[in-house]
Amino acid sequence: MKKFVNNVDDMLAESLSGFAAIHGDIVALGEGNLFVRRAMPDKSKVAVISGGGSGHEPLHAGFIGTGMLDAACPGHVFTSPTPDQMLAAINAVAGDPGVLLIVKNYAGDRMNFEMAVEMAEGKIATVVTDDDVAVENSTYTTGRRGVAGTMIVEKMVGALAETRASLEDCRLLGVEVNARTRSMGVALTSCTVPAAGRPTFDIDDTEMEMGVGIHGEPGRRRVPLGTARSIAEEMISTIVADLKLAEKGQGPAILLVNGFGATPLLELYLMAEMARAELARHGITIARGLVGNYVTSLDMAGCSLTVSMVDDRLLRLWDAPVHTAALHW
Amino acid sequence: MKKFVNNVDDMLAESLSGFAAIHGDIVALGEGNLFVRRAMPDKSKVAVISGGGSGHEPLHAGFIGTGMLDAACPGHVFTSPTPDQMLAAINAVAGDPGVLLIVKNYAGDRMNFEMAVEMAEGKIATVVTDDDVAVENSTYTTGRRGVAGTMIVEKMVGALAETRASLEDCRLLGVEVNARTRSMGVALTSCTVPAAGRPTFDIDDTEMEMGVGIHGEPGRRRVPLGTARSIAEEMISTIVADLKLAEKGQGPAILLVNGFGATPLLELYLMAEMARAELARHGITIARGLVGNYVTSLDMAGCSLTVSMVDDRLLRLWDAPVHTAALHW
Repeated sequence: MKKFVNNVDDMLAESLSGFAAIHGDIVALGEGNLFVRRAMPDKSKVAVISGGGSGHEPLHAGFIGTGMLDAACPGHVFTSPTPDQMLAAINAVAGDPGVLLIVKNYAGDRMNFEMAVEMAEGKIATVVTDDDVAVENSTYTTGRRGVAGTMIVEKMVGALAETRASLEDCRLLGVEVNARTRSMGVALTSCTVPAAGRPTFDIDDTEMEMGVGIHGEPGRRRVPLGTARSIAEEMISTIVADLKLAEKGQGPAILLVNGFGATPLLELYLMAEMARAELARHGITIARGLVGNYVTSLDMAGCSLTVSMVDDRLLRLWDAPVHTAALHW
Repeated sequence: MKKFVNNVDDMLAESLSGFAAIHGDIVALGEGNLFVRRAMPDKSKVAVISGGGSGHEPLHAGFIGTGMLDAACPGHVFTSPTPDQMLAAINAVAGDPGVLLIVKNYAGDRMNFEMAVEMAEGKIATVVTDDDVAVENSTYTTGRRGVAGTMIVEKMVGALAETRASLEDCRLLGVEVNARTRSMGVALTSCTVPAAGRPTFDIDDTEMEMGVGIHGEPGRRRVPLGTARSIAEEMISTIVADLKLAEKGQGPAILLVNGFGATPLLELYLMAEMARAELARHGITIARGLVGNYVTSLDMAGCSLTVSMVDDRLLRLWDAPVHTAALHW
């Protein structure tokens, strides 16, 4: 295993210490290092909290800050955070307007967030994201997986919360954005979980895993490595078919080309160009684009495409100022 | 070779098309796609231009925009741009205040930029960056290599140029920032140049290349893979010794932890924590930190540490607003 690490047990704690030290103007570690929160909490608004296993950085802690999240609970690598972590985060940032939890649809995450909600007091609502069109049910989920589209939900809900919108309005927005958002991923290599020390799956030099999950869990099928164009065509056509646009109106879209961790920008922008061309073929224009490593799978080579259909209101929420470690405008 | 590509010959052009499409509010492709420039040029200020081989994205095109570069010339992967490219960029963005070229110290880049200067008219000055302390002379250089510190020079000079500073003041600032900036890198894996289709160098699963260059060229020595702490100690102590701080004053520093392309943020922030602790041991505090993939080597796993000693004036230039694809605050 070739990683920058001292010993595997300390890896997450040391990384979080570095994160908090570098971004001390934006974030602070919570009590007992159980969670990460804004350096300057604002309890006059709905608090937006997310969390999940680590290994997907910058998701979620990189999205803490003005205009996006108030706190995030990082579990161990690819492991759900505990209810205690979530409860500590809720107690630290909740004000009278209440707390919205944004939870990716994985059985462990949902169960632990639900246990935290039962233990917590005050107004709490939950939005579950399940934007991955690759598979119904999966290794770790009943229903679809929540993947890169989660950051789009976090961005827009975070922007709405800054306007002092109600908890119910924030929740409804999260549900709406999730419903308008679809993702699909492809892996060229496996990731290596530090505690395991070896690749999660074997894959031949001539193969790719189409529809891979963000923990390296299986996708739709193992197929020969295709051209960038053919990969984008399959992912975009699957996404567009699933969006059933005739029913939802065919507005412009936000395109997120998300690297899984080991794929360089040169290739990600090439994939953006292929996705753009394919979306155009379906009559969909790109209102905003984002290309980079946002919802990663440790050191996996590969990428996901996310398409989120927007209207003027959603675009304003997307464009609203955001000041986090990983997203800043 | 596992990359997102249609065919190797079109890779750069397709990637640049995607880059320009996604960031059309910030950049535009220049005539004949020879260079990338700001979408809205401003000829009332010194134009700051850089360039070099592709494969280091987001350097340099990702740093075009208000507060940083005016144009960049992307050569083929790890290949210097041609004098024609540079001349076209100069002619497109030069105004009366003149043009400052920021050139990484590689023989090909320097020769071609010099040829472009000879062909161009108007006021032109050049700053050569050579921040890599790993080796004197190298595969592609006489003297030290220009690496990740180049982006710090570009940021600060770009900020000064926005204030309508003179060409000479911009040049002097570039020389000063370069002199205050040192970098060193380490590779855990090789990169794979698309046209070659195989790794640039062989490296054992238990080894690392200490002092590697950003094209995968040899560093100081091949050594057994160390702990993150020991790697940071060697890099920081080499950098600090080279800075000869007693002579230069021991101000605070900007720390850049730069991923080479295939190393995830979880590890880069861990390296940031190790670098921070090691700098503290040398009495150096971090005024600002930046962690991510900024000056990459295609799909190489590894990172570089850059330390740039600053004073209040330099910090103000660092903090000045910047609006580019890869850096935005």
